[in-house]
Amino acid sequence: MPKFLKLVSPSEALALLMHSLPEGVPENELVDTLHAAGRVTAEDIRASQSLPSFSRSSMDGFAVRASDTFGVSESLPGYLSIKGEVPMGEEPAFSIESGQAAIIHTGGMLPQNADAVVMLEQTERTRNDEIAVLRAVAPGENAILVGEDVQEGQIVVRCGTQIRSAEVGGCMALGITQLRVAIRPKIGILSSGDEVIPPDQVPGPGQVRDVNSYSLAALVTEAGGEPVLYGIVKDKLEFLKDRAAKVLSECQSMIITAGSSASARDMTAEAIASLGAPGVVVHGINIRPGKPTILAVCNDKAVIGLPGNPVSAMVIAGLFVVPLIKRLLGEKVPRPDKSCMARLTLNIPSQAGREDWIAVKLIPSTNQSDELDTWLADPIFAKSNLIFSLAAADGLVRIPADVTGLESGERVQVFLF
Amino acid sequence: MPKFLKLVSPSEALALLMHSLPEGVPENELVDTLHAAGRVTAEDIRASQSLPSFSRSSMDGFAVRASDTFGVSESLPGYLSIKGEVPMGEEPAFSIESGQAAIIHTGGMLPQNADAVVMLEQTERTRNDEIAVLRAVAPGENAILVGEDVQEGQIVVRCGTQIRSAEVGGCMALGITQLRVAIRPKIGILSSGDEVIPPDQVPGPGQVRDVNSYSLAALVTEAGGEPVLYGIVKDKLEFLKDRAAKVLSECQSMIITAGSSASARDMTAEAIASLGAPGVVVHGINIRPGKPTILAVCNDKAVIGLPGNPVSAMVIAGLFVVPLIKRLLGEKVPRPDKSCMARLTLNIPSQAGREDWIAVKLIPSTNQSDELDTWLADPIFAKSNLIFSLAAADGLVRIPADVTGLESGERVQVFLF
Repeated sequence: MPKFLKLVSPSEALALLMHSLPEGVPENELVDTLHAAGRVTAEDIRASQSLPSFSRSSMDGFAVRASDTFGVSESLPGYLSIKGEVPMGEEPAFSIESGQAAIIHTGGMLPQNADAVVMLEQTERTRNDEIAVLRAVAPGENAILVGEDVQEGQIVVRCGTQIRSAEVGGCMALGITQLRVAIRPKIGILSSGDEVIPPDQVPGPGQVRDVNSYSLAALVTEAGGEPVLYGIVKDKLEFLKDRAAKVLSECQSMIITAGSSASARDMTAEAIASLGAPGVVVHGINIRPGKPTILAVCNDKAVIGLPGNPVSAMVIAGLFVVPLIKRLLGEKVPRPDKSCMARLTLNIPSQAGREDWIAVKLIPSTNQSDELDTWLADPIFAKSNLIFSLAAADGLVRIPADVTGLESGERVQVFLF
Repeated sequence: MPKFLKLVSPSEALALLMHSLPEGVPENELVDTLHAAGRVTAEDIRASQSLPSFSRSSMDGFAVRASDTFGVSESLPGYLSIKGEVPMGEEPAFSIESGQAAIIHTGGMLPQNADAVVMLEQTERTRNDEIAVLRAVAPGENAILVGEDVQEGQIVVRCGTQIRSAEVGGCMALGITQLRVAIRPKIGILSSGDEVIPPDQVPGPGQVRDVNSYSLAALVTEAGGEPVLYGIVKDKLEFLKDRAAKVLSECQSMIITAGSSASARDMTAEAIASLGAPGVVVHGINIRPGKPTILAVCNDKAVIGLPGNPVSAMVIAGLFVVPLIKRLLGEKVPRPDKSCMARLTLNIPSQAGREDWIAVKLIPSTNQSDELDTWLADPIFAKSNLIFSLAAADGLVRIPADVTGLESGERVQVFLF
């Protein structure tokens, strides 16, 4: 039987791992902003100029001095003479004096002294060089004034933010064509097990191909890390210790998937303990699947020992490897988990006092009366070591430790893979 | 004013675009399974063997003939002699006869004639070569029988499925180290506007840097397409027609962001109409932001004319460009939108009869009593052309056309960027 030090809850386990890791600033590099989506900023990004850098119209219409329109209405229009037309992409060669207006297009630069725009629909052309204004505008109305989007010197993207398409565009607006981002941390991945062979080999009787190295590599990449595959090591303590020490010396963190037997798991714990202080901080988590998980910190580097069972390995990796990578990237601005709401199709029993994660398949609901009921969540009650139960699933439903199950028809949050 | 052909709802608009596109099979290529995450399968993937390929134990314990345990209990144990120990990764050299058991580890191969496993905890070692079985097991219990995960010949991943880490691992288990996937469709991106300059240039008065080309390129990449940037074209019909024709000849689809004025938008529509039949299928959508959107199909290729306003461009790209790319990739297996639930912090007014999309910032909730209330959604009521309103936002909330707004405290689905 595995010698569990003490079963802790998943959230306690994560906190223990994080508190045992040193604070640190990730290494960084410059990348083109165009290719920075998904990366994490390594410094605050400040606006070197205000945006917009000139007051712009946000409508097609007439640039005016707002005070010239005060009190006007459809029954009592105000009359303004047309001074000229603002060319797109250029500074108008004239200014607007009291009683004057200029034709302006969306995005055009407000002439000097103009401080608002009257929409075309709220004017009438009375003469070739005159309009009637049918509605008053306030200063700034239908315009974006200098600095209204961003003020010079303002932090526009905080250090530790994952870049999305919106940030890519925003940085380009400021002429920031390169960004300093955290280097992807190298996460070494080691599989162990006498029965495990590489995927390109044909298994003999009793042998199975390595699954975990590859699904974990894909997960590490998606989370922003750089997976480094170290292959398969036999369940011999000396082999495991030597290979694990090499992995840890070359990477920022290591994931070991243990051999599937209890003795192999104990050996993994022993090998991890040999790698440096403080060593194993969690051995055994009050969760299903994934109870025999090992969390360790050795010489300031995280080591995560995952169960060999492919379903457990992926569930636990989602809960611990993903936050670890975000920590190593210096990601500070939290983004919500990708999830969706769905209605359960079946009762799911669960043992009280233990957090359970259940794989579900999402089926489009035929009842579209409620906008939130787009999906039905159909639990997959496969044995937890069936590899293709995960491929059939869209995500996981969490059953907290303090409930004894979920009921059919209940609305649940599905954490998407 | 733009000459809208007819305002249609967003869902009608998408259906019109999709119905105007020819059915077609995407070009495909072979990629390493390890690097296939995010790609879309171009053929059904079948298992060339059953999984597991031998009956395996899923527990540490004793391999037995289940019938030998029928009727046993703690008060009336059954006694079995230990025939040997199953080595990991090898075929056991012995079979199990009636009255016999074999030591087996998780993942070990069941010896011939054994059809179940008794967990270690449900046995007692009575002699060196004998155990007492304290609980009966059914055939197949604590074991995974040949083909229980996957049957030989079974389709394990359907054509048109986006590959995730689970599929990567599953394919490796079957020895499928390469996958045939759809080639990323080339999406040409063209910006227009006399006032628009490239991001690496310093804007003069009245000029602004190109934002849309780059945020759209990031979005296209994320959706699985290959963005091809064609730079900025001046608002002259002949220039626009020529450049657009070139883009469409070199790409599978094209996105044009129109100049921001009404006349520039009309010119974009005219240029698109010149590219081939059937031409513009939607001009004007009953949505805010994004009403002046143009959807067209020219010579069997989709052309999407987006408003120049960066916020509108990104909202509309999410609603039309992303589904277009999924269609071009042949993605058939639907995956749910990435979203999360949150409680609104403020009332959001909305005009009935028009679908509104509101940017929101997500703030961690301090009220953790309800598991679903992890986030508060704080509406960002910025003018829709502020570039950094999107960078400040985490996602969008949809207000359907048939409601007049949402109330503070209401639970809403936030579609994450």
